Amino acid sequence: MAKIIRVNMETKEINQEEAGIYKSYGARGFIARFLTNEVDPTCEPLGLYNKLIICTGLLGGTMISSSGRLSVGAKSPLTNGIKEASAGGTAANDLARHGIRAIIFERLPAADDKNTYVLVISEEGIKLEAMNELLHMGARNTITALRQKFGDKAGIICNGPAGEYMMRGAGIVCAAPRGEMRFAARGGLGAVMGSKRVKAVVIIPAVVSRLEYFDKAVFTEAAKEYHQMLVDAMPTIKKTNQLYGTTGMFKIVNELGLCPTRNFTLGAFDKHAEIGGEKLVELIKVRGGEGKTGQSCMNGCMIKCLSVFPDENGKEICSTVQYENLSLLGSNLCLGSLDSIARLNYKVNDLGLDTIETGAALGVAAEAGIAEFGNEESFMKLLNEIEAATPIGRVIGNGVKITGEVFGINDLPMSKGQAFAGYDPRALKGNGVTFAMSPMGGDHTAGNAYGARATVPPLACEGQGALSYKLQLQMAGLENLGFCMFARAYLFKKPELFTKFAYGICGDKMTVDEFWEQGRETARLEYEYNVKSGVSPAQDKLPEFMYRIPLPPNNTVFDLSNEEMQKGLVH
Amino acid sequence: MAKIIRVNMETKEINQEEAGIYKSYGARGFIARFLTNEVDPTCEPLGLYNKLIICTGLLGGTMISSSGRLSVGAKSPLTNGIKEASAGGTAANDLARHGIRAIIFERLPAADDKNTYVLVISEEGIKLEAMNELLHMGARNTITALRQKFGDKAGIICNGPAGEYMMRGAGIVCAAPRGEMRFAARGGLGAVMGSKRVKAVVIIPAVVSRLEYFDKAVFTEAAKEYHQMLVDAMPTIKKTNQLYGTTGMFKIVNELGLCPTRNFTLGAFDKHAEIGGEKLVELIKVRGGEGKTGQSCMNGCMIKCLSVFPDENGKEICSTVQYENLSLLGSNLCLGSLDSIARLNYKVNDLGLDTIETGAALGVAAEAGIAEFGNEESFMKLLNEIEAATPIGRVIGNGVKITGEVFGINDLPMSKGQAFAGYDPRALKGNGVTFAMSPMGGDHTAGNAYGARATVPPLACEGQGALSYKLQLQMAGLENLGFCMFARAYLFKKPELFTKFAYGICGDKMTVDEFWEQGRETARLEYEYNVKSGVSPAQDKLPEFMYRIPLPPNNTVFDLSNEEMQKGLVH
Repeated sequence: MAKIIRVNMETKEINQEEAGIYKSYGARGFIARFLTNEVDPTCEPLGLYNKLIICTGLLGGTMISSSGRLSVGAKSPLTNGIKEASAGGTAANDLARHGIRAIIFERLPAADDKNTYVLVISEEGIKLEAMNELLHMGARNTITALRQKFGDKAGIICNGPAGEYMMRGAGIVCAAPRGEMRFAARGGLGAVMGSKRVKAVVIIPAVVSRLEYFDKAVFTEAAKEYHQMLVDAMPTIKKTNQLYGTTGMFKIVNELGLCPTRNFTLGAFDKHAEIGGEKLVELIKVRGGEGKTGQSCMNGCMIKCLSVFPDENGKEICSTVQYENLSLLGSNLCLGSLDSIARLNYKVNDLGLDTIETGAALGVAAEAGIAEFGNEESFMKLLNEIEAATPIGRVIGNGVKITGEVFGINDLPMSKGQAFAGYDPRALKGNGVTFAMSPMGGDHTAGNAYGARATVPPLACEGQGALSYKLQLQMAGLENLGFCMFARAYLFKKPELFTKFAYGICGDKMTVDEFWEQGRETARLEYEYNVKSGVSPAQDKLPEFMYRIPLPPNNTVFDLSNEEMQKGLVH
Repeated sequence: MAKIIRVNMETKEINQEEAGIYKSYGARGFIARFLTNEVDPTCEPLGLYNKLIICTGLLGGTMISSSGRLSVGAKSPLTNGIKEASAGGTAANDLARHGIRAIIFERLPAADDKNTYVLVISEEGIKLEAMNELLHMGARNTITALRQKFGDKAGIICNGPAGEYMMRGAGIVCAAPRGEMRFAARGGLGAVMGSKRVKAVVIIPAVVSRLEYFDKAVFTEAAKEYHQMLVDAMPTIKKTNQLYGTTGMFKIVNELGLCPTRNFTLGAFDKHAEIGGEKLVELIKVRGGEGKTGQSCMNGCMIKCLSVFPDENGKEICSTVQYENLSLLGSNLCLGSLDSIARLNYKVNDLGLDTIETGAALGVAAEAGIAEFGNEESFMKLLNEIEAATPIGRVIGNGVKITGEVFGINDLPMSKGQAFAGYDPRALKGNGVTFAMSPMGGDHTAGNAYGARATVPPLACEGQGALSYKLQLQMAGLENLGFCMFARAYLFKKPELFTKFAYGICGDKMTVDEFWEQGRETARLEYEYNVKSGVSPAQDKLPEFMYRIPLPPNNTVFDLSNEEMQKGLVH
């Protein structure tokens, strides 16, 4: 059975136990149940009693394409409720091949223990090492330093300086094969890692996989079927995911008028053609050098959305510029240059910050007059302040809520204390339901209505609650297995595959309905956890300006009825 | 019947209505019911839908000693729940004599309306004037400017620059006869006033009082009896309240080891003799000049706790240095000089900030290394940053929670987002119950166990819940009438007086039990409001370090059982 590793940061004891009651749960499903069972919902997120969970999906360590995402969870210092965030990169597969489902960091180092710790997992065992030379080091350099020390195949999960400073905008980084930074971005989980003084987890790959299957024959058969589906879809995958990643969306999002622009005051950006996916791919091709598209961020992935955006000399600026970066760091800041966006994106990543939270905070900062819309330098200056941990830098690094509170800005693009992802709810109302009602706050990964725009029009006032509800269940189910969102379109054509995968690994026989029911139970547990932590239902709403100030060019406000909203509540 | 004035800050309409269903309620009793009826508990505290209530007690405008306190209330931007704070000064009596029980500021000025407004109440009527010359003016100068314009008898309620910047540590100022600043300090209500762009309310005294009595004969008889009680107690009053105000407590609080010292890490201060009440009175006497004790802050008050602390040349530094200032701005910052405390106190007052919230935030700032314990200049520098509204100043001005969050300090002396008043709950456990369980958060005025230390020992683990419960009811009852805490000791000897006063004004016949029941109902409504706003019961606790880190010199932690805590819940 898969193992859970517990690391007590106070005593430095490391213990292993069997997954036990958690054997059928991975990723978000594991985190919801583990926090419910073990972490007092009223505890202080950066205090002694919170626990940081690093967890693979059920399929981690298998070679199933796009199933090796790493989930991180804790009580969030940003929302004060439950939070799970996931990332690509190689570490989840590496952990699972060591037979490990989850690592739990518990307690805090003593007040006089100022060491910076790295947990090293190898064939020799698991140990905690003080590596104080990594203190406040940027994430990219941290990955490089750790791979120099532990080998260039080592799986790396690490924290940037923002998390070490316990800034609430900090995410947790998971390294891709060539050191590119992937992000378990949302909810300030890097600050929890920082509170425990854990700089990184290093996994030196197992020589032989210890991943156990309950029924390998069933699993392999399903795997073959899924593989064939992807092979069949490859012509499409090559033209879309492999080329554009998520950036292909930008053009349509902008056309639909739901693209966060100028601190969520506009829904479309006049310089959209300069920063869309087409321009991005064109520049990568023209500039050449280190620039590339179609790389995988984890072993076995056939979708390969990773890209590297180079500067004019062909030197890498940032990997991977995604849709959320184009909108939150681009249109939201009125930056009409991919070079500007890529430079800010790299810097935000290297600081270990969530680009969504930080982009939104920078937008509010510009609203407050301490940066200038359209001026890259003014935003880079603020990022340098974050790096230097100056007062103003600490404010921005703590995200949109604290930035607004400190600078007296009241209309903030967030719900439950967390910045909206790149979809203005006034023009994509289904995401308004997800942002308001889901336990994850302003997080599109909990149920993104964008993909369903053909069936439920973004501006419709009906059907949005039911849509969000369905998406929330699907995402919670999908994330139990460790699947990437990109796998969704293909897998949803044959959801029996989910149940076969789950059975093949852990032996649980499930119908497809039971599989979705498991997702529902995950979201329900999360919501219940939030209620006990004091987050909901008073906070099941959007910021007031969304109901009041029309968003151009559709000139719509968020106007769903309370009844419609309640349909989006998973309970 | 008393009147309610509604001022719509969006349309600038001013309407009057009869108190109606609120006729029997004043001050905190009025605010609890009004917010419950009219303000959505989930609204944004600095947004369009919050309402700022300025209200007299039932006895405002009578000449009953110490009954002219002014209450201010709103949904708090600091706690996100209900908040009432009260102040001395002359304005409540002035309002009541115009026949006004409450002023309600509703809505917000349009985004492009950048005026600074003053509401002027006189025999000619009530009007809203733009007085932009007052923008960001210190509170003391604002009082002076308004009295120059409207006469030196004018009642003044005003906001300092901190409130105008919408800093959450801001209180609302009510002027005493000679321009001294009294504070409705707690809960960030100055930020609500700032959000509505109201700089001040000026009340030019009514020529003839319009205060109505239901039965003046009963009222007068009770008034005479109360007056005689105070006359009989005058020898004691002169030796205590008139001489020391609240500062006489400092010595005992320090001896009991419950005096916040060095950011709530110690319970006693080695330089206590330098900053206690005895030293204060001695210096006032020796220095002479403008220094004085025994002044009243409102007409008719016989207790007269107002004092003026002068510098070595006899020039006023600050009026009135009180116990909370000695502890939060003194021992908590390790400042062993009354001159230092008085200078900081004046500056904090003039900025329009709550000294408790700000003192606690400065303590956390010192913990974070951006000021130095024992160094007045380092703290004054931060206050100057608040005045200049720099990023660091805005952080501190927003109070202890945001200061801690920004600077990565986790152990914060607060509950429900609001700083503790000057009593460490580990050594005065009854106040721990009040801070955790009362709807008012870390606010001693909701039920201060200090005075009951002879019957319930501060360190006892039993009896604290019941004590806090009783005190919470009493305070809520007392505050309905507008009585000062100093009146308590005398009035509680004959609580039938409360019922006679209430009957004399509004005609409600009540037994003493029914009078307390009204206080209970006030606290219950407040708690219910908080629950709906998402504040409780998850937040019915103290910060974790209080349960974990022993406080010298008693070396006790806060260790009341959950059962004991629940006894302090008013429901």
